[in-house]
Amino acid sequence: MTIQLFDLACANQRIFFSPYCWRIRMSLKHKGIPFESLPWHFSEKDRIEASGSTRVPVILDQGRAIAESWDIADYLDKAYPEAPPLMAGTAARARAKFIESWCNATVFPTMRAIAVPSVFEIIADKDKAYFRESREKMLGSKLEELSKDPAAETAAMNKALKPAADALTEADFLAGTSPDYADYVLFGTIMWPYVVCRENPLDMSSPIGEWFERMLNLHDGFARGAARAHG
Amino acid sequence: MTIQLFDLACANQRIFFSPYCWRIRMSLKHKGIPFESLPWHFSEKDRIEASGSTRVPVILDQGRAIAESWDIADYLDKAYPEAPPLMAGTAARARAKFIESWCNATVFPTMRAIAVPSVFEIIADKDKAYFRESREKMLGSKLEELSKDPAAETAAMNKALKPAADALTEADFLAGTSPDYADYVLFGTIMWPYVVCRENPLDMSSPIGEWFERMLNLHDGFARGAARAHG
Repeated sequence: MTIQLFDLACANQRIFFSPYCWRIRMSLKHKGIPFESLPWHFSEKDRIEASGSTRVPVILDQGRAIAESWDIADYLDKAYPEAPPLMAGTAARARAKFIESWCNATVFPTMRAIAVPSVFEIIADKDKAYFRESREKMLGSKLEELSKDPAAETAAMNKALKPAADALTEADFLAGTSPDYADYVLFGTIMWPYVVCRENPLDMSSPIGEWFERMLNLHDGFARGAARAHG
Repeated sequence: MTIQLFDLACANQRIFFSPYCWRIRMSLKHKGIPFESLPWHFSEKDRIEASGSTRVPVILDQGRAIAESWDIADYLDKAYPEAPPLMAGTAARARAKFIESWCNATVFPTMRAIAVPSVFEIIADKDKAYFRESREKMLGSKLEELSKDPAAETAAMNKALKPAADALTEADFLAGTSPDYADYVLFGTIMWPYVVCRENPLDMSSPIGEWFERMLNLHDGFARGAARAHG
């Protein structure tokens, strides 16, 4: 049975850029569950109504709709216990939750000035009014005035990533010798600017850059093969 | 054989407040290694010369001096492999390194305005000139002008701790069902304001407050019995 994933798309429907959808794309590959990406646009909230959410990712599995990336990962482990676990036990759940909360609180905000204007350029025309209004309200700035000093913004992003860079001097993956949901959470977050920006802001010579390369190679190079806006 | 720990002390030599020494105090209890705290003052750099460091913690084990909390934890696991591990394998090392780097980069800076003036009040007179000069230089502010809005500073500290609070909704300890060095790193960090400040800034009703209570109870209530400056 193939899972369907409502997956945030650009005007070009082959380009998927949501950090939260990427967490689930990689999670489905990790578990070896076949899935189909359904390109979804911000303005298509009616298509995911059954999930009770207005945001993606949303998956459809045998008629059931599940929203929210954490809840989807949790569901996949429970519904497919025979497939490799995304979070194998209490310690793994605590680690993934820490990484998720840290990404949201510390990493993500440093990426907004870099990535939000790039997202605006590449989304579907029908999404632009909504995107501009919601992001300008959230960020308290016109999109055109958001990025003031790209070099400083890139440096701030790489500085925010330092705990992960340091951890990755000790292990190939945040989860140790092989990846789990903690790695997919951070990877998805970084895929956001990687997919949408003209220049990849990640310092690829750092331990986290080397980890990112390993993540791109996972699951037969699934993410390495992903379409990028300027790639 | 008893390990000796050079342990940063107040004028009152029963009060130990270094976040880095607390990491090792708890680590030694975790491993069940008997140790003796040697009260040490900022101005006594000659006493730890053999370690090659000018900072504590420094341990002496059978004539060997080891400095730096991470290196000490690593040494203890290698020198005492039969005792419970502080970091059991690659994944545990990555987790502890992440927590250490995150504490240093994100949590610790939010505590300075709260704790540094309190430390100045309680350290030995012979340490005060050095402490004032080094901290005012580091922080770019007179000690008396450091804490401007204690309520806002406390809120900032608890906000910085959010990833740990969220993780601790999934598990009793950062390491899962029992604590390891990752827990001791964060615990030591929080012991700093807990020991030196008039008011404990930690939100004790949050998941991290409940975890802190569990940590205080570990090893027969070792940390709960610790002397505090105003406790």
